[in-house]
Amino acid sequence: MGQQVPQDEMTINEGDLIELIGRGNLHQILKIQPDDEIHTHKGVVRTNDIIGKLWGSIIQSHNGNQFYIVQPALTDLIKNLPRNTQILYPKDVGFVLLNLAIGPGKRVIEAGTGSGALTTALAYAVGLSGRVYSYDNREDLQRTAIKNLDRVGLNDQVDYHVRNIEEGFIERNVDALFLDVPNAYDYLEQARAALKPGGFFGSLLPTMNQVTLLLDSLKKNTFGFIEVCEIMIRYYRIDANRFRPSDRMVGHTGFLIFARPLAQHDPELAETPEPDDI
Amino acid sequence: MGQQVPQDEMTINEGDLIELIGRGNLHQILKIQPDDEIHTHKGVVRTNDIIGKLWGSIIQSHNGNQFYIVQPALTDLIKNLPRNTQILYPKDVGFVLLNLAIGPGKRVIEAGTGSGALTTALAYAVGLSGRVYSYDNREDLQRTAIKNLDRVGLNDQVDYHVRNIEEGFIERNVDALFLDVPNAYDYLEQARAALKPGGFFGSLLPTMNQVTLLLDSLKKNTFGFIEVCEIMIRYYRIDANRFRPSDRMVGHTGFLIFARPLAQHDPELAETPEPDDI
Amino acid sequence: MGQQVPQDEMTINEGDLIELIGRGNLHQILKIQPDDEIHTHKGVVRTNDIIGKLWGSIIQSHNGNQFYIVQPALTDLIKNLPRNTQILYPKDVGFVLLNLAIGPGKRVIEAGTGSGALTTALAYAVGLSGRVYSYDNREDLQRTAIKNLDRVGLNDQVDYHVRNIEEGFIERNVDALFLDVPNAYDYLEQARAALKPGGFFGSLLPTMNQVTLLLDSLKKNTFGFIEVCEIMIRYYRIDANRFRPSDRMVGHTGFLIFARPLAQHDPELAETPEPDDI
Amino acid sequence: MGQQVPQDEMTINEGDLIELIGRGNLHQILKIQPDDEIHTHKGVVRTNDIIGKLWGSIIQSHNGNQFYIVQPALTDLIKNLPRNTQILYPKDVGFVLLNLAIGPGKRVIEAGTGSGALTTALAYAVGLSGRVYSYDNREDLQRTAIKNLDRVGLNDQVDYHVRNIEEGFIERNVDALFLDVPNAYDYLEQARAALKPGGFFGSLLPTMNQVTLLLDSLKKNTFGFIEVCEIMIRYYRIDANRFRPSDRMVGHTGFLIFARPLAQHDPELAETPEPDDI
Repeated sequence: MGQQVPQDEMTINEGDLIELIGRGNLHQILKIQPDDEIHTHKGVVRTNDIIGKLWGSIIQSHNGNQFYIVQPALTDLIKNLPRNTQILYPKDVGFVLLNLAIGPGKRVIEAGTGSGALTTALAYAVGLSGRVYSYDNREDLQRTAIKNLDRVGLNDQVDYHVRNIEEGFIERNVDALFLDVPNAYDYLEQARAALKPGGFFGSLLPTMNQVTLLLDSLKKNTFGFIEVCEIMIRYYRIDANRFRPSDRMVGHTGFLIFARPLAQHDPELAETPEPDDI
Repeated sequence: MGQQVPQDEMTINEGDLIELIGRGNLHQILKIQPDDEIHTHKGVVRTNDIIGKLWGSIIQSHNGNQFYIVQPALTDLIKNLPRNTQILYPKDVGFVLLNLAIGPGKRVIEAGTGSGALTTALAYAVGLSGRVYSYDNREDLQRTAIKNLDRVGLNDQVDYHVRNIEEGFIERNVDALFLDVPNAYDYLEQARAALKPGGFFGSLLPTMNQVTLLLDSLKKNTFGFIEVCEIMIRYYRIDANRFRPSDRMVGHTGFLIFARPLAQHDPELAETPEPDDI
Repeated sequence: MGQQVPQDEMTINEGDLIELIGRGNLHQILKIQPDDEIHTHKGVVRTNDIIGKLWGSIIQSHNGNQFYIVQPALTDLIKNLPRNTQILYPKDVGFVLLNLAIGPGKRVIEAGTGSGALTTALAYAVGLSGRVYSYDNREDLQRTAIKNLDRVGLNDQVDYHVRNIEEGFIERNVDALFLDVPNAYDYLEQARAALKPGGFFGSLLPTMNQVTLLLDSLKKNTFGFIEVCEIMIRYYRIDANRFRPSDRMVGHTGFLIFARPLAQHDPELAETPEPDDI
Repeated sequence: MGQQVPQDEMTINEGDLIELIGRGNLHQILKIQPDDEIHTHKGVVRTNDIIGKLWGSIIQSHNGNQFYIVQPALTDLIKNLPRNTQILYPKDVGFVLLNLAIGPGKRVIEAGTGSGALTTALAYAVGLSGRVYSYDNREDLQRTAIKNLDRVGLNDQVDYHVRNIEEGFIERNVDALFLDVPNAYDYLEQARAALKPGGFFGSLLPTMNQVTLLLDSLKKNTFGFIEVCEIMIRYYRIDANRFRPSDRMVGHTGFLIFARPLAQHDPELAETPEPDDI
């Protein structure tokens, strides 16, 4: 019935991005090269034992520990990112991509780079035909992000800038711009100058005080179609006979703010109605 | 300071996808062609009045009503979809894309097509280098979806099949597969046959009874790394002086289920730990 | 096996508080008197047809419509209150009673009276051995509340004051005090003067801006053990074969704030730890 | 302006229920007696140092540690209960009291006793004019509860039974009955026999599977006005300049189910409408 599939498309090949999953919540993500060794805290795995295996196979380390080898989801790339800053959570990242219309070929600015969680998602989503411009004023933080994206092979579509964004962004006419900085409200002129007219602006802020400052600033800078929301995720235990939500959940990461820099301004026309019918 | 931008990159051009936004929650999304007319319930707009304008400009209909012309977000494409079925909500779609690792170049199956909400998001995210295979057993529903994706110019990367998926999927070795059908638990053999080993499986089901049946079926079919969650979205009123959540919110759309068809099975090793540290 | 129950304890008697429930979400709550008529929009019911019936019986109006006769829950008293102001919701009221330690014999102040929703719950909970002091500066609103509590027979334990609370409360040494006024932060000196040292202070405020003003004022007035929370309620459809949350839910009513006026102040000792282990 | 208050009503007296609050989340609740010592892990406090002090004062232990002395809220009684079983949470207890119309003078059955969290709240709310009948089939658990209620002086209004509730409840015509047992659905005949016709039935169950079994059983036993809900509580950090929800929250305790045993049954008339307008 189905199509014939060449064997090598079902197996793990040199250069593939893989995720090792072992007991004790061990997750390790890397690009695989032949004749190499992967060092985990559950022993050493030889890459030649992995290459040629079917995806979803179990392999062993030198001391007998077992690992699954799978393709990482974008969620996995984000969750397993070595980090030295607070990162955006997958629940928030997914909604940001949709609201900023991030897709193949888009050009997008983010600041700050942080540990590169959103950078990873943006680079993944725009692909090689798109471009991500990532700003941070701390070179050390950005170096971690660069290393993180290198490890998963996503740096070809990213330009990094160490720069105080108060001086403005270098690019012009980008499709979307995301501010993940505490005082996002201070950089709306710079954001407007870099964005395509009518482009997509987003921000994540942890406190309500910051959100109200940003709301004021957005109105002063004649951004329209402003929306503020929170995404909450509730996990369930997967026991079919005792199906119930998990005992604990993340209570808060941040408020998401979206808006559009408009070429002309009519406050009433540019208002998003109460989203009661969404 | 910034780069020079050619004027035509900041303006609305022939062939662009535009969104008209007018008073009374009027949203209309279409590809713009010259010498054409756009009929809205607030009057007729001539496309020649739009082409050449800056994005984010205000234009007028023949009877003096005003509209913003902006680029639609992916969220907007989904929310404003003409529909004859329940659709996936943006809050869920964003998280699905991330968890199924949908990005440029990926090949993904969905069933059913429905009104094409998820189809739209998948087609947008995989781009022209990827491919979406969309199944429905009702030709009439699928016709609506095809028309919907045509309107926004996303059909080049989609293959539609009118087919009972009990007979199996035609494609093989796809990266991801999403089942948006009430009895998803009946099609896991078919899903496994179509998916790349270790590939990404997802489903959305509205009731707890369906979820427990799917959980049983996933275990019987040796899928691993099973996760069940719900995404809740809470909007806020944007008055900075009276900042507060909206009075009402969507209480439920569905439970999201994710899993991986593994080449070998070790139930304990393939268990996702209680996601308490996410 | 069980105890003998005198028949008249199982039946509806003169003077009982009853709730009529009819089709079309008809709920009517009143004290029943013999030889009387109850006028509903589904017809007239004679009280003599009700008295002597078992609780939970079905009776008919003059034109053949059917009604259940049951004892109202405190939730029902609140939900079916004739109102001309925003009222506290049952989800919030229950938690307020617990946090203010409201029980038989307690003396408690509330301001404003509003439509009497919280008044009803407080009067019910303190009983005839306790006392509720209810303040409002609008006599017309308070008159509605008095009528509402009269109808359900709870006025014997309530004193009403038409008074601007800026002038202070008349009572002293009350066990608890609840401020349901927009500028609660302006009346903390008055609250402290009326409360027993260490007593229970509570407030409900709809916006984040009001909450932060109250937090500042509570600290300035050396209140301790401050807590802020929100109660969310999620209803489920009761179809056992399609068990799922309701489609829509209340998104927000207000933030609840609790604190204690302390005799001596040590800010660090009077701090409630992050409630992560609750 | 205000009333005169006798000094001894503002001070801590012999026999009062007090809560010591010390650093490191130390909470200790007890009835105070003269010439006694309170042993805490932060040192020994002499009760004679407490008696006569204003409520909300700070006192010291023998080794210089400081404690606030306050009146415990009902919430505090529950949260600080020595326990050997899962207990009902305050967020749930408050809503249960309201929905079961628990107040002064009411007679209510609960099973099982567990550690006495709900027993405490029920005994507090019904007062000395009411009565709580608490069932458990494990004498050892119940002994803990008795000790817990003794410590806070609430046992005068409670009768304890060590008994398998399959054999039925001893009391008849009680106002309300709450089942906190895993297989609540097995005891609805017994519940109906003990409840006043039309009385208040409630239950808390952790899994959806249990809830659906109870829903089936309630319908079979002609209970009406069935409601299922969940109460979620979200705490906020109390820093007015950085106002935001707490990072983590309780994800799930249980589903609350309420229903009424009706004297006559008309399924359609006894249906609670979708609570969309609550």
